[in-house]
Amino acid sequence: MSVTAPKGFTAAGIAAGIKENGKPDLALVVNNGPRRAAAGVFTANRVKAAPVLWSEQVLRGGAVTAVVLNSGGANACTGPQGFQNTHATAEKAAEVLPGHSAGEIAVASTGLIGVQLPMDKLLPGIEQAAAQLSEHGGEKAAIAVKTTDTVHKTAVHQGDGWRVGGMAKGAGMLAPSLATMLVVLTTDADLDAAALDKALRDATRTTFDRIDSDGCMSTNDTVLLLASGASGAVPEYEVFAAAVREVCDDLARQLIGDAEGASKDIRIEVVNAATEADAVEVGRSIARNNLLKCAIHGEDPNWGRVLSAIGTTRAAFEPDRLHVAINGVWVCRDGAVGEDRELVDMRYREVRITADLSAGSESAVIWANDLTADYVHENSEYSS
Amino acid sequence: MSVTAPKGFTAAGIAAGIKENGKPDLALVVNNGPRRAAAGVFTANRVKAAPVLWSEQVLRGGAVTAVVLNSGGANACTGPQGFQNTHATAEKAAEVLPGHSAGEIAVASTGLIGVQLPMDKLLPGIEQAAAQLSEHGGEKAAIAVKTTDTVHKTAVHQGDGWRVGGMAKGAGMLAPSLATMLVVLTTDADLDAAALDKALRDATRTTFDRIDSDGCMSTNDTVLLLASGASGAVPEYEVFAAAVREVCDDLARQLIGDAEGASKDIRIEVVNAATEADAVEVGRSIARNNLLKCAIHGEDPNWGRVLSAIGTTRAAFEPDRLHVAINGVWVCRDGAVGEDRELVDMRYREVRITADLSAGSESAVIWANDLTADYVHENSEYSS
Repeated sequence: MSVTAPKGFTAAGIAAGIKENGKPDLALVVNNGPRRAAAGVFTANRVKAAPVLWSEQVLRGGAVTAVVLNSGGANACTGPQGFQNTHATAEKAAEVLPGHSAGEIAVASTGLIGVQLPMDKLLPGIEQAAAQLSEHGGEKAAIAVKTTDTVHKTAVHQGDGWRVGGMAKGAGMLAPSLATMLVVLTTDADLDAAALDKALRDATRTTFDRIDSDGCMSTNDTVLLLASGASGAVPEYEVFAAAVREVCDDLARQLIGDAEGASKDIRIEVVNAATEADAVEVGRSIARNNLLKCAIHGEDPNWGRVLSAIGTTRAAFEPDRLHVAINGVWVCRDGAVGEDRELVDMRYREVRITADLSAGSESAVIWANDLTADYVHENSEYSS
Repeated sequence: MSVTAPKGFTAAGIAAGIKENGKPDLALVVNNGPRRAAAGVFTANRVKAAPVLWSEQVLRGGAVTAVVLNSGGANACTGPQGFQNTHATAEKAAEVLPGHSAGEIAVASTGLIGVQLPMDKLLPGIEQAAAQLSEHGGEKAAIAVKTTDTVHKTAVHQGDGWRVGGMAKGAGMLAPSLATMLVVLTTDADLDAAALDKALRDATRTTFDRIDSDGCMSTNDTVLLLASGASGAVPEYEVFAAAVREVCDDLARQLIGDAEGASKDIRIEVVNAATEADAVEVGRSIARNNLLKCAIHGEDPNWGRVLSAIGTTRAAFEPDRLHVAINGVWVCRDGAVGEDRELVDMRYREVRITADLSAGSESAVIWANDLTADYVHENSEYSS
């Protein structure tokens, strides 16, 4: 279903030859209206890929009529030539899509940094993709943006006469501030750009911003929300925002579940924090502790590594009032030994860590992955 | 030579039975005077082990007559009982060392967090170590503090009539703010506690504080500097400070060279930064990027990952004025493709990354390690 689940959208995914292995590598998503409202959030990395710089400009106008996405090359750190290539991509799409203009076409890329895209493959590919645009093209588009993803990721929310659909790619470099993900969300609800922007920022703040596979922030992260208005329905803002959040949460969970080389999905919940910011800071510190990530991989409930991670933050807490549970067993109480760690069952893929700061009533959930030899192999052998 | 190279010091290292495998696990270093001046720096982790809390108190007096160090248990996150055990350790040492008092005896521990030390082994061990104290005991003491270290680490500087000697342990959890290292430095120069404190802080700031094996900060880091005054020599402060820095730099380099599972030592030099703080921030961000650390392990000069790490910092720079060299080849110029990456030879253990921020004239060097499957294995199978 993906991005073509809501009315008013067509999509396509093809193999343009950007990837040397011949797999699908180019996707096109088109908003056929009647509305063309859009919102976007982008990587917080200060080294931004050309398509991010381009699409940020496009989004300032609040309208996006089409999105061109490619895998097989990030077009990051490619200098003026890289930006010209992104511009040429949008121009080509405007040329083959009647009634579109380049200034309203977003571009997103993923793959190796520091290599120019093969425009002799990419530009004809856009023409080919445009010829295959279909109301059933959402799955193919989702497949074409995969890099090291083992599965393509899609989600749909059914509202009262309207829908939100989405696709996502991303398996490495996931981190706060939207590291490596390309996400396109669509809706046929009839809302303006301001409402879309608010709903998208609210949703990403507590979903994509709170997954941290390996602590590395990408140069290319892009999350777009396009509204066609084709259903004619105008949902209440809160209802719509909840739907967007649900779809983002679903896709974020799928990203963590398919992270490179991971064998465990780690749900880190920080409770009784003085502020939500404290809870997020502590959760991220735990999520990024390599020693803990190794211990989780080894199914070792090594709570000492959780405490040492908490200790590096500026959050409000007293060391002797910290409590830590792993899979429901409070192995650390009052900063010291709690229940018997032998009681912790870590055989399943999902591992739940709860850190109680005893400093207030705020909380946050961060999702992370374990650190494995497979992660090392995948990232030392694949130049990405 | 180690800590007994300077006059006025005796040391011992024995197997007290704290480690179940019977290897040496208890070290004693004694300052026989005539002076007993001392300085210390400790982990910046807010979750501090009992011996760190104890030794911080001891150092406030500016005098240390002896140091008890044990491997086989960190005595961290062990609650009031853990602190009582550290206190009892110092009391026992005072009892077996004539003329010493517990309040001037520092304690340092390393090993698994969250487990009480076996005091029935440790206390008799102190008595046994005291009986073996010798002017030639420095090597044995250095051996007794090893955990996963494959070699013991010592260094000596020969001054004009005085010396600085040192021993260090640490192989995992190395990070800024002195992560897992226990270091004891000794000198027979005749200097007071204030001079020692200044020299030690100056030295650690640019040595131990700038090595980052795996980004994880320990609960137990301790670096002590003890002066006996036994040589009668009073070196100029700058000369003495340079000697302390040299010994710290030597030991820091040995720590990186023996980091858990590492196959590469990575020297990251950030040049032309606006401030030294910017250079350090950028260096640490590069040092902690797991994707880059994997690439280095795979001998892949993946400079895009260097740029994406720089982009996450707050340092002053323009993305299109960044330059990166790997082993002397400027693979990235002006934020884009530079010299041919095929020219980079990465066969040797030492890898040099230079990041030029084009924003000023300050610089800093950070040492790090690669990320390997061996690191994952060692830290998922060994509960440390």
